[in-house]
Amino acid sequence: MKWNLPARNSAYRASALERQSVLTKPTGALGALEDVAVWLADIQQTDRPTANSASVIVFASDHPVSELGVSAYPREVTPMMVINLAVGGAAASVLSRLYNAPLYVVDVGAEPYPDPEPEDPVHWSRVEVRGAVGNLRDTDAMDAIALEDSLTAGADAVDALPEGTHILILGEMGIGNTTPASALAARLLQCSADEMVGPGTGVSGEALEAKRALVSMALARTEDSMEPLEVLQRLGGREIAAIVGAMGRAAERGIAILVDGFIVSSAALVAVRMDERLRDFLWFGHRSAEPGHARILEALKASPLVDAGLRLGEGSGALTALPLVRAAAALHNEMATFEQASVPNREN
Amino acid sequence: MKWNLPARNSAYRASALERQSVLTKPTGALGALEDVAVWLADIQQTDRPTANSASVIVFASDHPVSELGVSAYPREVTPMMVINLAVGGAAASVLSRLYNAPLYVVDVGAEPYPDPEPEDPVHWSRVEVRGAVGNLRDTDAMDAIALEDSLTAGADAVDALPEGTHILILGEMGIGNTTPASALAARLLQCSADEMVGPGTGVSGEALEAKRALVSMALARTEDSMEPLEVLQRLGGREIAAIVGAMGRAAERGIAILVDGFIVSSAALVAVRMDERLRDFLWFGHRSAEPGHARILEALKASPLVDAGLRLGEGSGALTALPLVRAAAALHNEMATFEQASVPNREN
Repeated sequence: MKWNLPARNSAYRASALERQSVLTKPTGALGALEDVAVWLADIQQTDRPTANSASVIVFASDHPVSELGVSAYPREVTPMMVINLAVGGAAASVLSRLYNAPLYVVDVGAEPYPDPEPEDPVHWSRVEVRGAVGNLRDTDAMDAIALEDSLTAGADAVDALPEGTHILILGEMGIGNTTPASALAARLLQCSADEMVGPGTGVSGEALEAKRALVSMALARTEDSMEPLEVLQRLGGREIAAIVGAMGRAAERGIAILVDGFIVSSAALVAVRMDERLRDFLWFGHRSAEPGHARILEALKASPLVDAGLRLGEGSGALTALPLVRAAAALHNEMATFEQASVPNREN
Repeated sequence: MKWNLPARNSAYRASALERQSVLTKPTGALGALEDVAVWLADIQQTDRPTANSASVIVFASDHPVSELGVSAYPREVTPMMVINLAVGGAAASVLSRLYNAPLYVVDVGAEPYPDPEPEDPVHWSRVEVRGAVGNLRDTDAMDAIALEDSLTAGADAVDALPEGTHILILGEMGIGNTTPASALAARLLQCSADEMVGPGTGVSGEALEAKRALVSMALARTEDSMEPLEVLQRLGGREIAAIVGAMGRAAERGIAILVDGFIVSSAALVAVRMDERLRDFLWFGHRSAEPGHARILEALKASPLVDAGLRLGEGSGALTALPLVRAAAALHNEMATFEQASVPNREN
């Protein structure tokens, strides 16, 4: 599966690089913020890149594997946290308000719960994902129908974004979902369960051993699978598949994607293995405290902007990087050039 | 010299830690943002920490050492960049506008230049610092009068801030000033010039060798000095001394300080060596690309929030971290508790 990505004129990238070299600073002194500005100019095909209009979509799903002792929280926390996100009490809700980036919560398979009554202008919707789901150890994470519906739900959520969205942040909520993320990343990167599995929400001791053992069994059960979409189906989850679908559609629409932590990065790994051109549309927001994240970042040659030890999900890590992306655009557009400021550029 | 620091009631810190443990997230999952919230609550002695009102003071000074081939830019760039800061064209000016943190430019000894005519509401002032300055190699960076006047200028600039300032960011402009910063940090950390000197604005090859040799000679000339204020006088610079004075006064007023990169961190090192209680008032904003910064951070046990490869100064690195500090406060104040959201906390 390849996405229908827009052609890009390389002149915008070249022009942005040229402008960075004449702004009143030593070339390179703004570090990654220079690279982010050039990236945005290239993706947006403009001389005036912007990150003003940013949206967050949090996909939420239940995981049967959460019944197998792999998480510090019970399975029913997923729908409860969906409501918390929708009414504005979760971390991503707070950051979304603070940074003026509307949050859309899309339930692609959480357990039944009463419809939330949002007190804040947060957008919540439920998409029926058909098909069967499994616990990875005994059965595939999704059947073909569940995979297809999840991918479509992701793409549809992007299509529902306001026209002119500049930046997309994807997040997830799903108790147990570091387990499938670890399994699919271990498979695609050919690591062992021990190399990829970490504490997630904070398991240790016996629970961490159980999580490692479960991922080992899941990897052994699926050892004949290496094709990324098949790996996603057998070892992923509905919200992870929705994120993959959303990434592809965002790239098709020329929207720059700011990537969150471990779970979303595992989805990014699938998406880039499906179509390596997708890598151009991604910037990695933060370095998660989840140990396996470093392996995914290395495989995707990514250097995240923020290193603050977050490991929460919900898109919260990428949200912390949004002001830096906006800073990169503002610096690019608003700094004086050496000529404008009558400052001589470096002598050598 | 000890500062007259305010007494703090430890109850606010304890209460903030308790609140962090009941917000709807695994404890620790917001990483350093949890620590920043607790830090602010402690410094501000409140249950509702805030970083809304933030100010930036950029101190600017000339350095005779810049005549000795240690910088990629000529000496006269310092006053030109002061004007660029004052009229809104410099990186720190752009970030100050973007993040709504007023920028005050205080000239404590730049070369003569025409008074700028600010087009933007940026505050600019010139303070007469008396006394003599030197090039480190042959003479001390400052005599006792220049040191005293610079320290006072820093404290006065803090006293002129609006009442109720929550966060202070300090920055600097001074062509050549990574050389004195390297020299004083090397002396206080007992490193060699080779271990501390880096490219600064971007010198390499012969210029980098010249910079290393100059710092070596300056260290040899002052090898009998280890007292921090004396090291500052002999190896520092007027804007670095002003930052030390500003840090002390900010702490006396209970204002939290967000520290910039290499130069400002060298001032922080002096300030903490003068009075170790000052360390409590500092959070480090970003990890500079200047190699010596890592040594100072290690000595001060600091883990910066942003790791984006900046090496520009002007307070720009600390400014990139301001939204994260604001995020820490907003998350602390606005997230729902497990009880409020009717979500069960972890089982173990």
